[in-house]
Amino acid sequence: MVYTLNQLRDKIEQRIQEELVDQLPQPAHLYEPIQYTMASGGKRMRPVMLLMAYNLFHDEVDQAINAAVAVEVFHNFTLLHDDVMDDSPLRRGKPTVHKQWDANTALLSGDAMMIRAYQFLAADARENLPKTLDVFNKMALGVCEGQQYDMDFEARQQVSENEYIEMIQLKTSVLIAGAMQIGALLAGARPQDAQHLYDYGLNLGVAFQLQDDYLDVFGDPDVFGKRIGGDILANKKTYLLIKARELVQGKDKELLEHYLSDAPHDEDVKIQQVKGLYERLQIKQITEQRIDKHYQQAKQRLADIPIANSRKAGLTELAESLMARVH
Amino acid sequence: MVYTLNQLRDKIEQRIQEELVDQLPQPAHLYEPIQYTMASGGKRMRPVMLLMAYNLFHDEVDQAINAAVAVEVFHNFTLLHDDVMDDSPLRRGKPTVHKQWDANTALLSGDAMMIRAYQFLAADARENLPKTLDVFNKMALGVCEGQQYDMDFEARQQVSENEYIEMIQLKTSVLIAGAMQIGALLAGARPQDAQHLYDYGLNLGVAFQLQDDYLDVFGDPDVFGKRIGGDILANKKTYLLIKARELVQGKDKELLEHYLSDAPHDEDVKIQQVKGLYERLQIKQITEQRIDKHYQQAKQRLADIPIANSRKAGLTELAESLMARVH
Repeated sequence: MVYTLNQLRDKIEQRIQEELVDQLPQPAHLYEPIQYTMASGGKRMRPVMLLMAYNLFHDEVDQAINAAVAVEVFHNFTLLHDDVMDDSPLRRGKPTVHKQWDANTALLSGDAMMIRAYQFLAADARENLPKTLDVFNKMALGVCEGQQYDMDFEARQQVSENEYIEMIQLKTSVLIAGAMQIGALLAGARPQDAQHLYDYGLNLGVAFQLQDDYLDVFGDPDVFGKRIGGDILANKKTYLLIKARELVQGKDKELLEHYLSDAPHDEDVKIQQVKGLYERLQIKQITEQRIDKHYQQAKQRLADIPIANSRKAGLTELAESLMARVH
Repeated sequence: MVYTLNQLRDKIEQRIQEELVDQLPQPAHLYEPIQYTMASGGKRMRPVMLLMAYNLFHDEVDQAINAAVAVEVFHNFTLLHDDVMDDSPLRRGKPTVHKQWDANTALLSGDAMMIRAYQFLAADARENLPKTLDVFNKMALGVCEGQQYDMDFEARQQVSENEYIEMIQLKTSVLIAGAMQIGALLAGARPQDAQHLYDYGLNLGVAFQLQDDYLDVFGDPDVFGKRIGGDILANKKTYLLIKARELVQGKDKELLEHYLSDAPHDEDVKIQQVKGLYERLQIKQITEQRIDKHYQQAKQRLADIPIANSRKAGLTELAESLMARVH
């Protein structure tokens, strides 16, 4: 059978509950932060996508649930350690682990969490373990590389468009891409189909991340849920700012550099001025085109897999809903 | 052929050099601290023991070198993160990673290092991967649990002898035990022989750690290389102190509690007084007996493996040299 998104999410939630929330091994100080993190929700998008990839080829998604949980545990581990590095106070409306406990607890529990992710992966991927472990390792290392590039870029003056796309690919998309590839490999898919799903996830991830940059400026505040212009105020090197700096000339160049300087700025004026400049440079259209390019590539990769469209409906709908914030 | 300790160490050093020191992948900020850590030496005892375990059953130790490197990389990763947690300034005579760079760099490079360890393991353990990965995961999680117990115990008033032994088993011995078990499994040893080697490593690790506690008080300062009595001054809950608190009575009890209190103490007097108390309570003999018990158990487990003693010579000599500091 082909499972719906909600059915898959329920299965994942149940396994997380049984294995990581209902049980508290000793020493409690090590495992409580893991329990706390895994019980705090989230959309479970990555494990759902792993199971959807599996479900393209096979009905028995229960045989890939532990691998799906592995990806979710790994994802949450990266958030936990990222929150320490960024000293973020809140995650999903609750204090972050290093605030609720302390930095050492966050460090060590995070380490244990990564090992737990490998344990879950090993539980499902017996005969496929060499291939799936290679994908998992490459994906995990890619996320670390992406986080490092992100920190490096913050300290740099100039970042090129290509560098930025590579960074968000590593930091965000590789995990989605790897999850889909693992799902396909566990289902015994042909290597080329597993690769198509990897490319699908990679492009969808880039499109999603670029959309995040876009919505910060051009989103509907009621729908977006965050304050519009936060990235502008923080001088964050988003796709929009990188393209603007590439294209800007003359007086607008002075204007942009003025607003990127440390001089004091009225927040609303800064947002309005930079947004106006983005519109004059057609950054809105350029970003929409780039998002659409990746979205179309993702759809093409999914179309390349020789399987009935009816089995692909879940992935198609999911991608549409992820993209619906712009399109 | 049966390799000597030095031959095995050279092989390991060479592989570490080729894979982790001579190469510097991008982003450099992520991989430089790994290079720095792996180039800073150490006795490579754990990977040597893995290869010795392998070499008991098989001649082609080159087929297990990546797994040996995996264990060494994992060990160095734990030191890197432990140094952050303890805010230690030096490691092997060089600034620790978080001092040389910063805490975020140490955190993220440490994470990447753990993933690299899994990559090395995967490179050697193809058909044996499910079994060896299970051992590796259990071992890795055990080390985190041991580190957590160690931190928990620092904050506690009382720690029992059994709790202490369990803590040092997890923090120190499980890694040696797991390394030996992985070596045996990769060589295709029978499960019971792999288990014997696990138990061998576990007991040897406990004996070694207890010896460290012992030498802090009863060691020869010229041989030990550290100041005698450092643990006494720090009120460190070593095996000696735990046994002393268990056995002490009457006036000596008051004396011990006085020296454990926050009151100001002359350092030399404190060391001399606590050492005298340990001698009155026969802590020296009790500790020697406990060390010897684990050492004998280790030797017995090695003897239980039905293989010619000539092949075991390397492990026997290594154990003797590790124990030579007391015996």
